[in-house]
Amino acid sequence: MQNNNKQFSGNWAIVLGGSSGFGLAAVEKLARHGMNIAVLYRETAAAERALKENLSQLSDVNETVIQPYNINALDNAARAKFIEDFGANKKNTVKLLLHSIARGNLKPLVKEGDKEPLTQEDIQLTTYAMATSLLDWTKDILAADLFHADGRIIGLTSEGSDKYWEGYAAVSIAKASLESLTTYMAVELSKYGLKTNLIQAGITATPSLKRIPDSERLIQHAMARNPSGRITKPEDVANVIYLLCTYEAAWINGTVIHVDGGEHCR
Amino acid sequence: MQNNNKQFSGNWAIVLGGSSGFGLAAVEKLARHGMNIAVLYRETAAAERALKENLSQLSDVNETVIQPYNINALDNAARAKFIEDFGANKKNTVKLLLHSIARGNLKPLVKEGDKEPLTQEDIQLTTYAMATSLLDWTKDILAADLFHADGRIIGLTSEGSDKYWEGYAAVSIAKASLESLTTYMAVELSKYGLKTNLIQAGITATPSLKRIPDSERLIQHAMARNPSGRITKPEDVANVIYLLCTYEAAWINGTVIHVDGGEHCR
Amino acid sequence: MQNNNKQFSGNWAIVLGGSSGFGLAAVEKLARHGMNIAVLYRETAAAERALKENLSQLSDVNETVIQPYNINALDNAARAKFIEDFGANKKNTVKLLLHSIARGNLKPLVKEGDKEPLTQEDIQLTTYAMATSLLDWTKDILAADLFHADGRIIGLTSEGSDKYWEGYAAVSIAKASLESLTTYMAVELSKYGLKTNLIQAGITATPSLKRIPDSERLIQHAMARNPSGRITKPEDVANVIYLLCTYEAAWINGTVIHVDGGEHCR
Amino acid sequence: MQNNNKQFSGNWAIVLGGSSGFGLAAVEKLARHGMNIAVLYRETAAAERALKENLSQLSDVNETVIQPYNINALDNAARAKFIEDFGANKKNTVKLLLHSIARGNLKPLVKEGDKEPLTQEDIQLTTYAMATSLLDWTKDILAADLFHADGRIIGLTSEGSDKYWEGYAAVSIAKASLESLTTYMAVELSKYGLKTNLIQAGITATPSLKRIPDSERLIQHAMARNPSGRITKPEDVANVIYLLCTYEAAWINGTVIHVDGGEHCR
Repeated sequence: MQNNNKQFSGNWAIVLGGSSGFGLAAVEKLARHGMNIAVLYRETAAAERALKENLSQLSDVNETVIQPYNINALDNAARAKFIEDFGANKKNTVKLLLHSIARGNLKPLVKEGDKEPLTQEDIQLTTYAMATSLLDWTKDILAADLFHADGRIIGLTSEGSDKYWEGYAAVSIAKASLESLTTYMAVELSKYGLKTNLIQAGITATPSLKRIPDSERLIQHAMARNPSGRITKPEDVANVIYLLCTYEAAWINGTVIHVDGGEHCR
Repeated sequence: MQNNNKQFSGNWAIVLGGSSGFGLAAVEKLARHGMNIAVLYRETAAAERALKENLSQLSDVNETVIQPYNINALDNAARAKFIEDFGANKKNTVKLLLHSIARGNLKPLVKEGDKEPLTQEDIQLTTYAMATSLLDWTKDILAADLFHADGRIIGLTSEGSDKYWEGYAAVSIAKASLESLTTYMAVELSKYGLKTNLIQAGITATPSLKRIPDSERLIQHAMARNPSGRITKPEDVANVIYLLCTYEAAWINGTVIHVDGGEHCR
Repeated sequence: MQNNNKQFSGNWAIVLGGSSGFGLAAVEKLARHGMNIAVLYRETAAAERALKENLSQLSDVNETVIQPYNINALDNAARAKFIEDFGANKKNTVKLLLHSIARGNLKPLVKEGDKEPLTQEDIQLTTYAMATSLLDWTKDILAADLFHADGRIIGLTSEGSDKYWEGYAAVSIAKASLESLTTYMAVELSKYGLKTNLIQAGITATPSLKRIPDSERLIQHAMARNPSGRITKPEDVANVIYLLCTYEAAWINGTVIHVDGGEHCR
Repeated sequence: MQNNNKQFSGNWAIVLGGSSGFGLAAVEKLARHGMNIAVLYRETAAAERALKENLSQLSDVNETVIQPYNINALDNAARAKFIEDFGANKKNTVKLLLHSIARGNLKPLVKEGDKEPLTQEDIQLTTYAMATSLLDWTKDILAADLFHADGRIIGLTSEGSDKYWEGYAAVSIAKASLESLTTYMAVELSKYGLKTNLIQAGITATPSLKRIPDSERLIQHAMARNPSGRITKPEDVANVIYLLCTYEAAWINGTVIHVDGGEHCR
């Protein structure tokens, strides 16, 4: 049965990486439950036009505020400016900080033929983009006193954090870093009412997955092994992001939740 | 904000071990959302009287049907009879089978002073009570065609499934068996629309925990280490049982979800 | 470089399931290092003749004692009689108890077409054979005071303990039980000088693997994914059983060691 | 029984962080088995004098070559120069690259009172020191063709990689990164004959542990919970580093081995 609760009216979500994939699906689901949303992304002018139209419709249909921000969430100055602009009158309203940034290097560890290997800079940029930038955002939102008294921080990890996927070394290190960071945020930030969790989605045909060299094989393999007969869709994950925001989820903290129809079971 | 969705009207839950602890808390939460419930338990006449009154009130307040069954859920004949009685007119209505049976032996592995050690029979009884009886129930409910097209099977595990707690060997083996069984049920039963998951609750002061020799130390230790400042309550777990029944959770299958305020993080 | 240490001269190993696969490979390796060995197995007269010849040669070449026992290691009376016979003059000499018994049911969880499903008896027999029988053996060897002051108990687990393999449900439950039991034995038996560990071998083409319905696919899949270019051989595992018996391994306790050339990494 | 195999005569180990703790203990153990060793460290002149005397004695007693290098293993130029100097005539002789560098920031995630929080630079320096510098070393040794045809790469992780320890966030992220990197090195470098593994030691009273704010509590807690009655010593870990270098360990790749007397079991 559809669930039409509008329980997040008056609350805000900040979605880092909200123009496609899991981020956008979360925007759609959360808006249906009354959440206001700041959507951060990097897009070309053309892509942005379509996105803004989509967001504007979502906003109208659901009677929520949706604010698009075409900014680089990995830039300190851009983050500071966002906090200043957005935060002006949002004290204690940020129910959710969702980190859905996918931007990573896909090189082998050592030189293979004419493929250049990962450098330390590659690893650091990937880890910052996909993992530790979450800490900077959290710190600043906390310092500006924007978080709701029962807030949620959610990130996305993948099976590649501890399994080998071709070309995925830097992303794997980033995801492993994110899992560790989540454990530490869960403990150290609980005193601010924050619950920090990750979702490990099954293989989903998002734009960022398709950049992995191995992605076609990963998708085929996931189709064959997923016991629920299909691969994961962004909406599946958005549904669980929604569930984690409900008050019933307030005792879930520091976990990784698999959302994959059982794919990880084999 | 309270959530008053009545989305389970017309659905049934079968709760094995519903007279106290997690089972009873789940009954209370699910009834509020319109679920009809068959509550199975073993209690003395005195305890049963109070329980029945409680269940009857829950039923009145929430306008759902709650049927108490004082039967031994571990007995084949009792199970068969229950299926026959209960199932007569419940085709495709069982949304949830909840396994919350705690009945285990608490002996050391080898003789220690005058403490008798675990026997194979102890291990087998404990494993059946706390783990593999779930398979028998599932088989029979499936054979009688009672499960809802989008059904849920939920069990309870604990940190003791892979950590040492004094006196907990047989229960640990049972919990480890349950985790393995869950993985296999998640895969083999997905074709029937069933999603099978476990909740790993933090230390909760339930009657069954208190039977563990180490329980007082476990509770003290949990209070000290739980980053959310208290130990887990049955309601915390019941809330997540409810969430797992929502349609938004339909892509969660074969997982263990920690519900402990972050206690497992340290 | 070959390692010709005879450091186990005068010590004994008891190998449960020593006529083929990992058990036999362990016998061969340990004999080279001077270990005396009681080899337990179930074989037909024809197979036994060849085995005994093999063992007799091993014994001659390595100048160790190798005693074959064609008995049912899962039978209480047989175990008691073995302890009595073998143990007469072996106080404090048993360096290693190796559990390498593979005897499991390979049925689906619920009826599928004309395939009968697992019964509770199937689960119990499989769990006893592949897991908890280790406890009975340990108890009796301990009670008879046969263990060396720095003894080792080693069992075998597999990736199927927490991953789905077709038809493997009962074995998976058994392996999960064994992992839990190992944790508890590691803690409770350390006071007797015993170190209890498991080896998780990669897919190995042993007779017992070949009984799994899925085995051919598992072998093909393992060949494709094993980064070391081949699947695991019994000798690979026997080598690590040997290492775990050395005094340098005395601080390894309660672990699962992967021996698979890196196969589990993807 | 002591093991006096000199099976590593003519081989070399490069030990990053060899002046104390696990690194020094490994030097002592490996020298006894004939390994030549390049020992890298950062020490003051006074500490270095004592160390050099110690190393010189080890070298004499064991008839191996031990070369001390007081250089910064985290500096690119220093690494390049080392490879050039050391590597001149060592083609295919490096049996072991051991990474035992402990240099991390110990700050909270967010400002607490007057304690400054972790910065991204802190996280990056810690991760480079304790994890990804291993990749740079491996790349250069590989490019210079120094690795033995059956080489070993070993690093050190800790329980803090996925458990919360006060002040340990940056180190935890580093250790999690190291675990992920190990998985990827195990797969991608197996074609060069390299086996990459980690040891997760129990709490050991090394100089680097003592810098953790929580260390005294960690040591007390480890003493209380270690089932083997004491905490881990550097020699326990050195013994397993030795075992991982033997040819019997050649099929162990991509693993984390617990060396803690069973401490992780509870």
